Amino acid sequence: MSPGVLERLNAGEVVIGDGGFVFALEKRGYVKAGPWTPEATVQYPDAVRQLHREFLRAGSNVMQTFTFYASDDKLENRGNNLKVTGAQINEAACDLAREVANEGDALVAGGVSQTPSYLSCKSEADVKAIFRKQLDVFIKKNVDFLIAEYFEHVEEAVWAVEVLKETGKPVAASLCIGPKGDMHGVSPGECAVRLVKAGAQIVGVNCHFDPMTCVETVKLMKEGVEKAGLKAHYMVQPLAFHTPDCNCQGFIDLPEFPFGLEPRILTRWDMHKYAREAYNAGIRFIGGCCGFEAYHIRAIAEELAPERGFLPSASEKHGSWGAGLEMHTKPWVRARARRDYWENLKPASGRPQCPSMSVPDSWGVTKGHADLMQQKEATSKEELEQLFDKSKTH
Amino acid sequence: MSPGVLERLNAGEVVIGDGGFVFALEKRGYVKAGPWTPEATVQYPDAVRQLHREFLRAGSNVMQTFTFYASDDKLENRGNNLKVTGAQINEAACDLAREVANEGDALVAGGVSQTPSYLSCKSEADVKAIFRKQLDVFIKKNVDFLIAEYFEHVEEAVWAVEVLKETGKPVAASLCIGPKGDMHGVSPGECAVRLVKAGAQIVGVNCHFDPMTCVETVKLMKEGVEKAGLKAHYMVQPLAFHTPDCNCQGFIDLPEFPFGLEPRILTRWDMHKYAREAYNAGIRFIGGCCGFEAYHIRAIAEELAPERGFLPSASEKHGSWGAGLEMHTKPWVRARARRDYWENLKPASGRPQCPSMSVPDSWGVTKGHADLMQQKEATSKEELEQLFDKSKTH
Amino acid sequence: MSPGVLERLNAGEVVIGDGGFVFALEKRGYVKAGPWTPEATVQYPDAVRQLHREFLRAGSNVMQTFTFYASDDKLENRGNNLKVTGAQINEAACDLAREVANEGDALVAGGVSQTPSYLSCKSEADVKAIFRKQLDVFIKKNVDFLIAEYFEHVEEAVWAVEVLKETGKPVAASLCIGPKGDMHGVSPGECAVRLVKAGAQIVGVNCHFDPMTCVETVKLMKEGVEKAGLKAHYMVQPLAFHTPDCNCQGFIDLPEFPFGLEPRILTRWDMHKYAREAYNAGIRFIGGCCGFEAYHIRAIAEELAPERGFLPSASEKHGSWGAGLEMHTKPWVRARARRDYWENLKPASGRPQCPSMSVPDSWGVTKGHADLMQQKEATSKEELEQLFDKSKTH
Amino acid sequence: MSPGVLERLNAGEVVIGDGGFVFALEKRGYVKAGPWTPEATVQYPDAVRQLHREFLRAGSNVMQTFTFYASDDKLENRGNNLKVTGAQINEAACDLAREVANEGDALVAGGVSQTPSYLSCKSEADVKAIFRKQLDVFIKKNVDFLIAEYFEHVEEAVWAVEVLKETGKPVAASLCIGPKGDMHGVSPGECAVRLVKAGAQIVGVNCHFDPMTCVETVKLMKEGVEKAGLKAHYMVQPLAFHTPDCNCQGFIDLPEFPFGLEPRILTRWDMHKYAREAYNAGIRFIGGCCGFEAYHIRAIAEELAPERGFLPSASEKHGSWGAGLEMHTKPWVRARARRDYWENLKPASGRPQCPSMSVPDSWGVTKGHADLMQQKEATSKEELEQLFDKSKTH
Repeated sequence: MSPGVLERLNAGEVVIGDGGFVFALEKRGYVKAGPWTPEATVQYPDAVRQLHREFLRAGSNVMQTFTFYASDDKLENRGNNLKVTGAQINEAACDLAREVANEGDALVAGGVSQTPSYLSCKSEADVKAIFRKQLDVFIKKNVDFLIAEYFEHVEEAVWAVEVLKETGKPVAASLCIGPKGDMHGVSPGECAVRLVKAGAQIVGVNCHFDPMTCVETVKLMKEGVEKAGLKAHYMVQPLAFHTPDCNCQGFIDLPEFPFGLEPRILTRWDMHKYAREAYNAGIRFIGGCCGFEAYHIRAIAEELAPERGFLPSASEKHGSWGAGLEMHTKPWVRARARRDYWENLKPASGRPQCPSMSVPDSWGVTKGHADLMQQKEATSKEELEQLFDKSKTH
Repeated sequence: MSPGVLERLNAGEVVIGDGGFVFALEKRGYVKAGPWTPEATVQYPDAVRQLHREFLRAGSNVMQTFTFYASDDKLENRGNNLKVTGAQINEAACDLAREVANEGDALVAGGVSQTPSYLSCKSEADVKAIFRKQLDVFIKKNVDFLIAEYFEHVEEAVWAVEVLKETGKPVAASLCIGPKGDMHGVSPGECAVRLVKAGAQIVGVNCHFDPMTCVETVKLMKEGVEKAGLKAHYMVQPLAFHTPDCNCQGFIDLPEFPFGLEPRILTRWDMHKYAREAYNAGIRFIGGCCGFEAYHIRAIAEELAPERGFLPSASEKHGSWGAGLEMHTKPWVRARARRDYWENLKPASGRPQCPSMSVPDSWGVTKGHADLMQQKEATSKEELEQLFDKSKTH
Repeated sequence: MSPGVLERLNAGEVVIGDGGFVFALEKRGYVKAGPWTPEATVQYPDAVRQLHREFLRAGSNVMQTFTFYASDDKLENRGNNLKVTGAQINEAACDLAREVANEGDALVAGGVSQTPSYLSCKSEADVKAIFRKQLDVFIKKNVDFLIAEYFEHVEEAVWAVEVLKETGKPVAASLCIGPKGDMHGVSPGECAVRLVKAGAQIVGVNCHFDPMTCVETVKLMKEGVEKAGLKAHYMVQPLAFHTPDCNCQGFIDLPEFPFGLEPRILTRWDMHKYAREAYNAGIRFIGGCCGFEAYHIRAIAEELAPERGFLPSASEKHGSWGAGLEMHTKPWVRARARRDYWENLKPASGRPQCPSMSVPDSWGVTKGHADLMQQKEATSKEELEQLFDKSKTH
Repeated sequence: MSPGVLERLNAGEVVIGDGGFVFALEKRGYVKAGPWTPEATVQYPDAVRQLHREFLRAGSNVMQTFTFYASDDKLENRGNNLKVTGAQINEAACDLAREVANEGDALVAGGVSQTPSYLSCKSEADVKAIFRKQLDVFIKKNVDFLIAEYFEHVEEAVWAVEVLKETGKPVAASLCIGPKGDMHGVSPGECAVRLVKAGAQIVGVNCHFDPMTCVETVKLMKEGVEKAGLKAHYMVQPLAFHTPDCNCQGFIDLPEFPFGLEPRILTRWDMHKYAREAYNAGIRFIGGCCGFEAYHIRAIAEELAPERGFLPSASEKHGSWGAGLEMHTKPWVRARARRDYWENLKPASGRPQCPSMSVPDSWGVTKGHADLMQQKEATSKEELEQLFDKSKTH
């Protein structure tokens, strides 16, 4: 039997996560941007299975169930008009993840994420009930461990961890925050302490910011946990987009989100730097979120191959640091088959009329966090329409 | 029975091509950059089938067999050490294309591309024999039509067309050239005339340059053909990368080729402009090459939906012009659910230390075309090594 | 007595021109952008004299009289409400140029430029009469030679040359055109031939485009003149702004004209490349126009010091290729005191939210040249107002 | 008699400073980059006087004596081989400043700056003796007030203030630091407190950073002073270069310093924003340093004209917000004669192969401040050579 996530981390191993399903499947035609819900597990299982396989082959040790935004409250309020239930979506996701995990050395992680119930100020009991519904499926399908991810508010994440802990399975908790902390201004260090105290054995961040910013944020978490005399493992699953110009809400506020982010996509060489930086920061669960494709994960596995002692399957189709180019027909392209070429390249955008940095939408920022909590996200179709009308008057 | 490619074009229909397999499957871990050969049709048929399905779903009317660089001379000289023959690779490619084509309204096109035999100055008879080997498979598998694509030298493309014409099937011919013409300096107009005279019913360009440059080149072809009093249909299958800074050899010479091209990837909105421009230029076979993913093809199909009268299947998961964002939780993101927002966005690169344009490698350019023909591409492992040694002394 | 401009050029010497007075004095507070007229010769002679001295000290061999747009018709229609006449302005300009020229090895060149009379379709006789008025002053003040510069229409430039030739003094003629030719589409080669046939001994271009574009244009002029079996000397006095994104009307159409051009200003190292390129193209009268300051002219003189055998006075305060930095206090700045550092530097803009290239205003372009000739420039206050009203409706 | 600087500030008036002499005169050919010493006051008084006049005309209320780096220890160690003494240089500077100040409503400020003596760890007494030498001249020439400026170490600035206070004249103190504080890491707030306690009535920053960064730093100073229960007036005299990519040592560490800074030059419209921002921050002594030319100072005066009730003389040659363009001949240029056009323009660099941000030289940063103090700046020719040799081995 394969060792569990904590056994691996306790042994000092690197655990490589997978990449982002929502963005990858949106481009392939199976997820709708806006609602971002995962009905595809039922509708297009072949497409979901193939993506799992690409990540496995690239070196991922974790198959996350494709259950992002798959809580019942979210599915309803996003107008899920398929005749499939939330339970069916979650079950299919577990089956697909397990099927592919068993094809290699990977664990299945059941995932929950932030809920509309919390954002519309439902009670702790109500919000926890929502998480428990997904959890029932994860227990039935016997996932290997659990991840509470993509939380902007540490309070909700703590509630999620408390629910997930009831199962006795290992629990990881991952916020979508940057160095400035959560949406109430709770610092990364303090967030991490609260999550560890709630029972999370692995803490970190995912989504919303680029790799270097995320590593920086997890460093702050680690400092906080260590100062508090606590212990934890650390995880990071950032965007595969450069976001030096984000404000505290991350890439959502960039004018390019979500349909104009192409020029920001990281190269495989950027990923080498990220993997090394994360490793040096003491982070051992290293993966990706939106924008990550298989070749990005492979780059992590290749960078850390010296430490891990092996390459992923997909390296069969990749010469490290461009070595495959030695087989190129043009001599000047063969001359690029070397590490220092790719390590030092400053890739051009080919877009001379575009800037290098954007001004993020500033509504949230100028009005402040408190105000944001009041405007808040919509939790029903009616609310959506009301908010949209209001937003148009600004 | 589904109408053939010429019946569709003669009826004034738009035929939407597919995207690039080599680059997409390289990122997914199934093709090696450098050799770029398609053994995956035998090794990883599920991955190839899935990519066909994505393009079909996005609106492609043509499933090109994944037989790029699958001539026997290329496979051998790229060190194909699998125990599969060229025939097996080509047969598997035909079967996969046919399987998916039959799932929708698509035709199967068997494709041949430029050969090492030509580049090492083999005789016309030898080069034609190479094409005939692939063609035998296409006939056996009964593809719907044939494409000779990715030729830098019109002479070799003419030979290919002459061979393909022997079958009686419709023949398309597509060069990887820009407005300055082929590697011997033959202009696009003259290239097109030669191809039409050789029997190609559809002529155009693919790969090597960005969409607008390719449309420009096909316009020059059309002018040439019309001036010569000939008739043809036109096709364009460009890169999905911005390449304003290329010289005559196209993106191969850019320092970012092939592992640092991310910042140049076109957005879906760039694709709308491309589709419209191609349509306005009188081109009716509109597809893509390296860098194109399913969502790029879907954008073409969505832009031309008014002319065609229908949307592709994948639009089920896409609100045109970002309409899906009306379901987003943040009001300021919902405010982006409109055409003029995306049409006018100048997306930032998030890379403030990178330039917007590169200086292409100038070896070929400074030494000139004649010289290039002598240095030429390598056609055997030994030659490769010799050339590589020579290139290092420059 | 100092040798004249033709004696110098005939002897194969390099004649270094001066830089642009209008832009430099605008920044210093003595010229108004918009009218661009040179009343400062009468109002602020100290400021004009100082600028002459800076160019002389930087290596200029030519002091051009500051008589740009100093024809009577221009001064009137720009609302000159000082109680000074055109003659007074032109006379003061001659005196200032002569005073400083005599302080060193420089010649005085009297200059005329394009007139509102031509643009409002006055007769050849009327336009020539306008030039003769300025010429009377130049004769009275005995300038060393004459320059007809900044003409967008070769026809008007030919008229100017014909008038200037009446004096028997050497005549240079310089158009503000790019490689696509004058506003009627007459090619640079043909323009040059007409000017030489009209009697100009020196022909070339000034203003409107960056140095490399201007050198390219003069090369086309030279080709035209040589093909026609004629002989001439060549001059170039470009902008000190990078303008890769201009259309045929030059920098006027860039959205940054005239108050946002700072990020485009050439460094002294760009000027070294320009001077070398101009010299290699066989151009021997090498100077500058708008944007050129003394240090730009000094860079030309320093680049061509090996050919000329001497450095300009101002090099006393300049170590070639940054050698002065050897005296800097910081070791890492001292490390920049070398040629290859500055030659290869790609200077950053410090403006991450700005693009690298602009889209020029397209009115003129989309409506075409013919149309432009009808809309034309305003030649009276009333006309100005009418045109402005019309332009607002576009 | 004209009111003094404190009377003006106490009355709530805005005092407009002048721009940078060293950079402006380097471009004009009268100062050598590297040593940066002001022998020009004796050698080329006309050039210095002209620059004073441009600033006066642009609206400056302060003529700073051109005595930067004019302490005897600096002049000696920079190899001053003219037969002029430090006293002569300082005296000439005072005479020129007074001559022009008397032509308008301006005060003369005698300036001292950081010394090699401090950097080579001379005693407080020795360093103060150096300042006293310059001060003797300022007293003899009866300047209106004194400025200690361009100090990287607050300790030396405090010593300077203590010496200047002996005269009884008003004293301003200005550090060349950013928001991270001085070279020993003393915060801006603490620096300001020490300077005020030493007797400075006006405190602030000059040079090294762009306007917005400098305003930010002075805000931190103000907060510090107010928290300490003290009172002061505030001044800011920043660079006219965009420097978002600087580290703590400012623009010296940018690879473009000092000969490739052109693309970073602020436009006049950037200056409007700066002036407003400085005014809103409560700063009332607002001027410039390196890179500022007359038109930059004029833009400050024009922005603050509503508060001050008058325009500067040079506005005679400037339509506010581009109004002069209403007289331009091209209609589409006339259409730019409006505030919102220039306020919103994002000017392109015309340099598509250059980045928008640089990586600063990191020697100082990676080795840290303490180390820097040991490597330190050279204080003699021998030391310079030794340091340079050492730097080459890195």
